[in-house]
Amino acid sequence: MDRLDNALQQSLEDIVGPAHVHRDAETLAHYGRDWTRAIEPAPVAAVLPGSIGEVQAIVRLAVDTGLAIVPSGGRTGLSAGAVAAQGELVVALDRLDHIGDFSAVDRTVRCGAGVVTARLQAFAEEQGLFYPVDFASSGSSQIGGNIATNAGGIKVIRHGMTRDWVAGLKVVTGTGELLDLNRGLIKNNAGYDLRHLMIGSEGTLGLIVEATISLREPPGDLAVMVLGAPDMPSIMRVLDAFRGELQLHAFEFFSEDALARVIEHQGLQRPFETSCPYYALLEFAGGDDATLERAMALFESGVEGGWVLDGSISQSVAQARALWRLREDISETISRWTPYKNDISTRVSDVPAFLQEVESVVNANYPDFEIIWFGHIGDGNVHLNILKPDALPMAEFQARCGEVSRWVFEIVQRYGGSVSAEHGVGLLKKDYLLYTRSAAEIEIMRQIKRVFDPAGILNPGKIFDL
Amino acid sequence: MDRLDNALQQSLEDIVGPAHVHRDAETLAHYGRDWTRAIEPAPVAAVLPGSIGEVQAIVRLAVDTGLAIVPSGGRTGLSAGAVAAQGELVVALDRLDHIGDFSAVDRTVRCGAGVVTARLQAFAEEQGLFYPVDFASSGSSQIGGNIATNAGGIKVIRHGMTRDWVAGLKVVTGTGELLDLNRGLIKNNAGYDLRHLMIGSEGTLGLIVEATISLREPPGDLAVMVLGAPDMPSIMRVLDAFRGELQLHAFEFFSEDALARVIEHQGLQRPFETSCPYYALLEFAGGDDATLERAMALFESGVEGGWVLDGSISQSVAQARALWRLREDISETISRWTPYKNDISTRVSDVPAFLQEVESVVNANYPDFEIIWFGHIGDGNVHLNILKPDALPMAEFQARCGEVSRWVFEIVQRYGGSVSAEHGVGLLKKDYLLYTRSAAEIEIMRQIKRVFDPAGILNPGKIFDL
Repeated sequence: MDRLDNALQQSLEDIVGPAHVHRDAETLAHYGRDWTRAIEPAPVAAVLPGSIGEVQAIVRLAVDTGLAIVPSGGRTGLSAGAVAAQGELVVALDRLDHIGDFSAVDRTVRCGAGVVTARLQAFAEEQGLFYPVDFASSGSSQIGGNIATNAGGIKVIRHGMTRDWVAGLKVVTGTGELLDLNRGLIKNNAGYDLRHLMIGSEGTLGLIVEATISLREPPGDLAVMVLGAPDMPSIMRVLDAFRGELQLHAFEFFSEDALARVIEHQGLQRPFETSCPYYALLEFAGGDDATLERAMALFESGVEGGWVLDGSISQSVAQARALWRLREDISETISRWTPYKNDISTRVSDVPAFLQEVESVVNANYPDFEIIWFGHIGDGNVHLNILKPDALPMAEFQARCGEVSRWVFEIVQRYGGSVSAEHGVGLLKKDYLLYTRSAAEIEIMRQIKRVFDPAGILNPGKIFDL
Repeated sequence: MDRLDNALQQSLEDIVGPAHVHRDAETLAHYGRDWTRAIEPAPVAAVLPGSIGEVQAIVRLAVDTGLAIVPSGGRTGLSAGAVAAQGELVVALDRLDHIGDFSAVDRTVRCGAGVVTARLQAFAEEQGLFYPVDFASSGSSQIGGNIATNAGGIKVIRHGMTRDWVAGLKVVTGTGELLDLNRGLIKNNAGYDLRHLMIGSEGTLGLIVEATISLREPPGDLAVMVLGAPDMPSIMRVLDAFRGELQLHAFEFFSEDALARVIEHQGLQRPFETSCPYYALLEFAGGDDATLERAMALFESGVEGGWVLDGSISQSVAQARALWRLREDISETISRWTPYKNDISTRVSDVPAFLQEVESVVNANYPDFEIIWFGHIGDGNVHLNILKPDALPMAEFQARCGEVSRWVFEIVQRYGGSVSAEHGVGLLKKDYLLYTRSAAEIEIMRQIKRVFDPAGILNPGKIFDL
């Protein structure tokens, strides 16, 4: 459908008011895509409902008219889950941005789907509490989208994924029905947990309109340490040694190639003189002397054992931030090489062998490809990046990377890993879903979608084809 | 169906071997029920498969012959989820009791469904690790059953429910298909999380045959404190004050009526002289002096503020155990009064008002009923117990308790609570599901069941009728 007919436009305006139905090209380009850029957006319109009732009315209208809906949050996704490329109606939840009903006893707060992550973090802080899910897009991602994609980030090893912080969920299904799931209860074993089914379903089962979010006490002082290691098994040794004695809040890794680029292009200092094949960044609780002594003792035993080559520890908040930048600036730094990116996971113990297999196959076939590794290694989640050689035309690079994807996913499959650790499937990975989920599972997912969305109007074509 | 015809019996014996098909009355009585005693078991047979392949073959045979299956674990359930009262075939997973594939790096272990909880706990301890889900039936409950019912217990405030420790799940659906869900991954956002849908589905969506269980580092020294309080809001005040400064591993409560019975019938000592309306039992990390000082300071500020009347703290492991018995022996102690029991939850903040409403309505209608409260108050989970007055005939008591249930569930509904906090729905609570789940949700559950179990053979009639 290329354009809305007048009757449909009128119906949408009757629901949300004329000011909240958008058809101009600029607004449609804005609401029609996420942080992926590979697919041209082409929504028929964007509507911004101001209440849950309006969301329900829009869904019922879509059922009646056969119009497909793409739910839209902060559109910071990296798998094109929020891209509207097929003339869909974008339903942007931005205006459902109420935050309140805070309960100090329950440590919960009720948020509209459109509340921006950073605003929830700030709200928690005002109450003397903490919302621990954090990632690069916190300033624009929205709670509804975070839940729809089960967003992860840099604190998963300590605090889990978004899933772990959703105590209640209001969802509008594909029939316009409002489900009020779990209502903030800690214990509730009365029937199937539909809340967990909704979390991570990327808008294909329902539109998330409101959530009751759990908060926790603030983490207190955190120290940051960067350690250099001779190889990946040594990085795993570091993980095992440190998490046995310290409370880890983050355990990230990056390769020397990644560090070298960040140092060069961000004007940062190396954490220490020694250049090492791999680095681990550890964040752990406790600025107290006893904790720091334990950390130093572990560092020294690593050096003696040969699994640590050098290290640096933050002595202040500013130093901690500076060490974090070595890891956090990688993505932006390498973007100038328009890298091929892949977000994958295996069991933590399989990571070293997995990395080696991927490197072997890429190096054997394309020796001019430079691989940059980084990621949340404490969770088994690695980000594979391949930089485009300057001389190689983009189209050829993309074609070769298509091949690389197949090789990588075949290795993922062999290890029983996941083709999408934290970015979801959306459009970009649906062709690869079979590498990580069986045909029987995918058929079950299709049928579950039909239960919640019999008309097939909710984000059709995302995750799998119907 | 009252008896298996010869052909069917032969088919079962062909699958599992003659030694593992049971038809004698004693064995059927054993495998036909759980810890509930209200419903007479009447299974047609009990089979004990020795492999996942045998489970699949049994399911396919059941589909072909229309025989209903009741999956059976340790049968310690309290909602008749594992009762076979309608001539079903009991499929007992006892023989799937392998435990192994331990990974120190991943901190996971693979368990057959039939592994008894205490054996998993012991296995974890041998590896220097800890499996934190614990409850009274750990000595006989099995991992498969724990997962099927999302078992809770006494450490939920610190370590969550069984759900939080399942890193992977192998399930045989109602078509005999084997699903291998999540495979021990920490991060996996590739499609719907069917694992979480299975957890707590009480055998109605699939037979859990194997799980990859996460373990964690041991909790270290724990101290136990019992505090007396003048009323329920004061108990909540204790919760709020202590969890802000100490790492709580348990926060239980019980009433003076409960304590008095335990003291009298178990020959235990009161924790302190003062008799108080309510008691909180706190368990928290850290036997070190600083922690104990903080606990003492909180206790003193509670006494000054009037929200604590008296208290006692463990000075040794033996004392800690003795204090725990005051709470843990309640259930057994009051069993001689054949109490009416109900396992319900609300949001934590609603507990005091909820308790008061329940007491008011029961006292107004049945002033001779004695109410005993205890439970996992830090999770909003209370166990309501009403003792049968000696003079009242059992039938009349049960009839009146039927009325009480309606009143209680109406109050639960008003508070948005759950009719089953941790015991599941099974047969005993399915008539009350509408008090806690909407008609739309129940209809969705029915349809989801049809997706996994189109023939309707898996534990039919549990949770809801088809």
